[in-house]
Amino acid sequence: MVEEMAKRAKEAARMLAQASTQGKNQTLLRLAELLWQEREAILAANHQDLEAAESAGLSPAMIDRLTLNEARLASMIEDVRKIVSLEDPVGEIFDAKKLPNGLQVRKQRVPLGVLAVIYESRPNVTVDAAILAIKTGNAVILRGGSEALNSNRALSSVVRRALEETGLPAEAVQFIDDANRELVNRLLKLHEYIDMVIPRGGAGLHKLCREISTIPVITGGIGICHLYVDDSADLEKAIKVVRNAKVQRPTVCNALDTVLVHRAIAGKFIPPLVQTLAADGVRFRADPQALEYLPAFSTPVVQPAGPDDFDTEWLSLVLGIKVVDGLDEAIEHIAEHSTAHSDGILTENYAHARRFVAEVDSAVVYVNASTRFTDGGQLGLGAEVAVSTQRLHARGPMGLRELTTFKWVVEGEYHTRA
Amino acid sequence: MVEEMAKRAKEAARMLAQASTQGKNQTLLRLAELLWQEREAILAANHQDLEAAESAGLSPAMIDRLTLNEARLASMIEDVRKIVSLEDPVGEIFDAKKLPNGLQVRKQRVPLGVLAVIYESRPNVTVDAAILAIKTGNAVILRGGSEALNSNRALSSVVRRALEETGLPAEAVQFIDDANRELVNRLLKLHEYIDMVIPRGGAGLHKLCREISTIPVITGGIGICHLYVDDSADLEKAIKVVRNAKVQRPTVCNALDTVLVHRAIAGKFIPPLVQTLAADGVRFRADPQALEYLPAFSTPVVQPAGPDDFDTEWLSLVLGIKVVDGLDEAIEHIAEHSTAHSDGILTENYAHARRFVAEVDSAVVYVNASTRFTDGGQLGLGAEVAVSTQRLHARGPMGLRELTTFKWVVEGEYHTRA
Repeated sequence: MVEEMAKRAKEAARMLAQASTQGKNQTLLRLAELLWQEREAILAANHQDLEAAESAGLSPAMIDRLTLNEARLASMIEDVRKIVSLEDPVGEIFDAKKLPNGLQVRKQRVPLGVLAVIYESRPNVTVDAAILAIKTGNAVILRGGSEALNSNRALSSVVRRALEETGLPAEAVQFIDDANRELVNRLLKLHEYIDMVIPRGGAGLHKLCREISTIPVITGGIGICHLYVDDSADLEKAIKVVRNAKVQRPTVCNALDTVLVHRAIAGKFIPPLVQTLAADGVRFRADPQALEYLPAFSTPVVQPAGPDDFDTEWLSLVLGIKVVDGLDEAIEHIAEHSTAHSDGILTENYAHARRFVAEVDSAVVYVNASTRFTDGGQLGLGAEVAVSTQRLHARGPMGLRELTTFKWVVEGEYHTRA
Repeated sequence: MVEEMAKRAKEAARMLAQASTQGKNQTLLRLAELLWQEREAILAANHQDLEAAESAGLSPAMIDRLTLNEARLASMIEDVRKIVSLEDPVGEIFDAKKLPNGLQVRKQRVPLGVLAVIYESRPNVTVDAAILAIKTGNAVILRGGSEALNSNRALSSVVRRALEETGLPAEAVQFIDDANRELVNRLLKLHEYIDMVIPRGGAGLHKLCREISTIPVITGGIGICHLYVDDSADLEKAIKVVRNAKVQRPTVCNALDTVLVHRAIAGKFIPPLVQTLAADGVRFRADPQALEYLPAFSTPVVQPAGPDDFDTEWLSLVLGIKVVDGLDEAIEHIAEHSTAHSDGILTENYAHARRFVAEVDSAVVYVNASTRFTDGGQLGLGAEVAVSTQRLHARGPMGLRELTTFKWVVEGEYHTRA
């Protein structure tokens, strides 16, 4: 059954690749209308999921992510309209040149083909993945969490209707309407039909995809993020940046996990930092040297760091804190413990900033800014498909362009190779 | 053992990433000297391999690929000097912008990290892979075919000596000096240390890598290539292009496998084509309609195409030939049978050329040129790492740039996210 879906998706992808930007935008605008027009059916389907989730005793956080209502539908519709306004990367021509033998060579941006998106029980991802795919001329196979099955069925059928009503192939959006986990394993082997797998979920899902997929996978979204506070930093401003990176939205991958503090300013910086962030509810895991500066604090606000604490993505109001001898030790600590997502230095020292940028090899390296900026919207991409922490194809926030590839076009006059 | 090698490679990669272009070029120039200086030891090691290969009864073609001599060493040294002359992609800055909030954002090209290259018994690949890696600041783990073990050991030790003598880490080049096949399986699971796998070999090796690797793999190098001869083509010139694509070097992936001929010109085109190429030793596999134009030819020059013949990469002087009703059928045939490596149209019809380029989605699409141009050197990349037929990261001929990734650098003034 997934094989058949993938085959149909590949056929549809060939048609969608030829669609004009205007045609794809028409589909998206029709989708925006239909999402509102069909809101009762969508919310009724979501209600079914919510009832089942409540009797199954899902956590309030999971139920919140599962919940749709008119306000959330309206915001989904806003997202659709926003994607319409973005530039279509398909068709872009680059690296064009005429070779000495007269051959004209260029690269031309084309859709990737068929995407598979595997995600948790968040119905908004169904629409998000579908509209990113449609805008970039890709077909997409959607596999959402089982708790959202009714919501996802309703939403994907609206997307397919929008495609059909505007003359694009409905088969370009395939929804796996079956909670059987075995189907994911089979899906991940269909490299003949599927060109890219995007897992949107936790570390376990990424691991599964990396280990069993024969299709290229975009792994990412796991961030053990660091800020190093240099001895030259403006300490008052540094507290504000550390606070923003930790507190503004602690549950996401670009939130801060560990702050590294130069020994020379540890006495001046650590106590006020802990005091300020403790008021926000932050709990600290301190290395022995940092603990020395914190006699006034005790559990639960400050406790000694355990052996794995500097290798933990907290996703909550917990912050590791460690004293280092200087830039070298900070860079070494980051090389050893970072997931190469987002790491930064706070400094007034020009040479230190340059060395940090040169030697820290993370997807996004910061000087004097919060790690929370690692986001397609914040960094000017208009949309965000995922944050990649792998090194091939795309690194860091991925926008529409990262859902495309290119072909070489070579034009001659019956040229033969000598 | 491979785990330890990979770990050492990763450590060396961090150092190599900081090396200057000048420093890397010095290493390469020293390597060029050492390859000549140490020629006796290298050729003696190669002689051992050749003796073993001969008593094992290897085919003449395999023995030829295994053979080194002074002329081939000189050509290897030429290749090293050529890589020195190419631009270093590392450090390139692109997509730089200042955001409305004042953040300065740029992307900066950096090495991929650690490459693993798995290849057949061709000692020249040992040097080729090592110099491409060094130039781009990557560490590399080399796993060559067992028949070349002595040659590869000698060559890789010269490379390591060149690194050491010029102040770069010798551990950046690791040679797996062990023919145990199980080591490849273990190597392909070391995603913690290795960033990209490049298989250089046949379909079986690519399949193995795709199926068991947890590291991103560049698959490619398998080409079922087509030329479609449109009814508007200049037939005399078309015969020359088809001949070049088939005959010039039939054993490589960009050689022609199938020629598709428009029905309207089949009678005028097919007999002279077959006659011309038969003189070069080409044998044809013809579909029933093409056969009708070839009563004057018989086996072995022309025989009926078998059921798999249009799905075969010939790598020899065999050519499939098929009559089609026109552009639509040609495009459909290519969509069904091509490996999306290199496909072309020969035509004088502007609209047909445009449609072919738009609808045929191969790594390299040609208008009025031989498929033999699919090559990094021919298309102006200066060097060729591999020809990718996958869609992520790199497609078609890969040059130095395709051995790099980038990091985002974000500089602010203690910016926090609102």
